Formats: sequence, structure tokens, C-alpha cells
Amino acid sequence: MQLLKERIQKDGKVKEGNVLKVDSFLNHQMDVKLFVELGKEFKERFKDCNINKILTIEASGIGVACIVAQYFEVPVVFAKKNQTKNIAGDTYTSKVESFTHGKVYDIIVSKQFLGPEDKVLIIDDFLANGAALLGLTKLIKDSGASLVGAGIVIEKGFQEGGKIVRESGVRVESLAIVESMDPKTGEIVFRD
Amino acid sequence: MQLLKERIQKDGKVKEGNVLKVDSFLNHQMDVKLFVELGKEFKERFKDCNINKILTIEASGIGVACIVAQYFEVPVVFAKKNQTKNIAGDTYTSKVESFTHGKVYDIIVSKQFLGPEDKVLIIDDFLANGAALLGLTKLIKDSGASLVGAGIVIEKGFQEGGKIVRESGVRVESLAIVESMDPKTGEIVFRD
Repeated sequence: MQLLKERIQKDGKVKEGNVLKVDSFLNHQMDVKLFVELGKEFKERFKDCNINKILTIEASGIGVACIVAQYFEVPVVFAKKNQTKNIAGDTYTSKVESFTHGKVYDIIVSKQFLGPEDKVLIIDDFLANGAALLGLTKLIKDSGASLVGAGIVIEKGFQEGGKIVRESGVRVESLAIVESMDPKTGEIVFRD
Repeated sequence: MQLLKERIQKDGKVKEGNVLKVDSFLNHQMDVKLFVELGKEFKERFKDCNINKILTIEASGIGVACIVAQYFEVPVVFAKKNQTKNIAGDTYTSKVESFTHGKVYDIIVSKQFLGPEDKVLIIDDFLANGAALLGLTKLIKDSGASLVGAGIVIEKGFQEGGKIVRESGVRVESLAIVESMDPKTGEIVFRD
């Protein structure tokens, strides 16, 4: 998606350790006008899939997912990263190892909100090593719901997540795939 | 806001310990069509305030804040609850004691995204003891930004947060204020 790639080139910052900082428009400050364009693009790509629910994961996936959901006219469910006393009763649970935080945590969805009747589109802001996405696909599988695919804003194509998830049979649509990036020059190259 | 009150009556569940579960439409599964109506209402209430930024806090404030932001045509910044290596550099920090989780944590906003040039509207899903809201107002004060007010979806009027924050001089607009609720009967009474 050209608009997104231009924005990443303009405002993205490449840091040591495979970090692409896009916190000025995607995952700390959020440019909702840009999100609207992302929403239209995801709708176009998944328009014939008859989804009835979007699944994402807290925190930075939620904003994009809610804007996208308007174009599909479906609710969003977000997987929580910590058990809270406000989620009583049965949950689906999966373990995720965070690239950003360097630790393992549980993600949780209440069984009330995911089940065999659901056709689910996953929306997330980043795909890197694939841990979060694989965790979400496991929750969906455990629930008996159908997974239509995953819509990702930025995929780090030089990490293995996209390959692993696609080879597992999941349709992944990433709006920008970073092929390589250089923390010394700041150069970002996208996959065609 | 009548539509919201009806939804809380219909789908909210009162639990022991002053817990109002609205996770079927507000803070786990999110009814984006409802959020659109909340967005229009907040826009009506704060239409003359010339805000240029919405501030919220992860995780459950983000969805509402992003939908609301479309009506103001401004970006959203969300305060993060944990330091991550992706927030490098200077941050504004405030301590918050969580009612839900029963622990104290830091909330953080990068100094890049909040400053004296900003006129800020806070949006959050809940106001109970006021800890999160007071934390956010401190971040805004520390940044030199102007706080226009706070738009809250559900206020627990029987807890002290709303009173404390209003007495501190902050304009608080809550779309539904719960005056009392009874875990035995499930009854929910709203303030007029």
C-alpha cells in the first residue's frame, strides 16, 4: 500500500536490534486518518469473506482493529495479556513470547466471545517473529471458530513470522512488508 | 446518553466488589457501531473546544478513543502501562493504582507526543476511583499542554473519582453515571 510505505519512509525510524519505530503514527500516537485508509484497504482485500468478528491483541492492535471493523460492520474482540478479575469464567489461553518485551506471557479470550459460529479476521499492527499471530490463531482454533486470514499493517519480511504463518496455511495480507532496513543509514527497503 | 444506558441495562452484569461487567460490548468485545454513537455524542459535547489531540490509556480506552477521534479529526495518543524498549528517550511518567488489578504501575507518554502546543481531550471507558484519570491529568500538566476535559463512557457515581476530578477543576462528561448497583438483584440505577 503506497500511502503507508511513504509514511513509513517519512516517519519511521530504524534502530539497532531490528527495531522499526513508528510510534509517531501507529503504536503510541495513532494517526486515525491513516487508519481509515488502512481500513478501506483491508475491506477491499477481505471483502468476500463474510467475516462476523475481528480479533486483535492489546494494546497497539486495538486502534487499527476498531477503525477497520467499521468497514466490515462487525465487533472487535481483543485478546488480553494478563488475567484480570474482570474476566471471570472460562477463557481460551495461549502463550506468546514478546519480541519487544523479551518475556513470555499468556493471552486470553473469554469463551463467551469466540466460538464455532464465528468467521474471524485477525488484525494487528506488526508481524515480526509471528509469536502474537500464532498465539491468536491457536485461540481461534481452540474455540472452533473459522479463521479467514490476518490483516497486518507492517510485516518485517526479514524475520520469519510471515513465512511460518503462511506455511501453516493462514492467509496473511500485509499492507507493507519491510524487506530490509539499516540502522546506520536509516534506509528502509520494501518488498514489491 | 439513553442508548448507552439501555445497553448497560441489557448487557451489563453486576458482580460483587463493585464490578460492572460490560465486556460484551465495551472492554473485551467492542461494539464498534455503539462506539460510533459515543463518538458523535462526545463531539457534540466538546465541539467548541478546538482540541488537537485525544489522550487515552491502554488497553480498553484505545478503541473508543480512536472512534471518537474520527469526529474531531485529531490523532490519539495512548499512555502505556509498561516501559518498553520501543519507547526510547524522555517520557512523562505518572503512578496509577489499578482498581481492577490491585497494584500500582507507571503510565508513560513520550515527550514527543505531548507538549505546550496541545489542547487535549482525555477519553476513557471507565471512571471509578479516578486513579487513571488523575494520572493522565498529571501527564498533561507536566507536558505543559492544555486539558480541555475528560469524556468518560461509564462513571461509577458511587465511587469518589468523579467528585475528586471535578473538584480539581477538570470538566468531566460521562455518558452514563451509575448511581447504584446491586449484585444480588442485578439492578443498575443511573444518575439523572
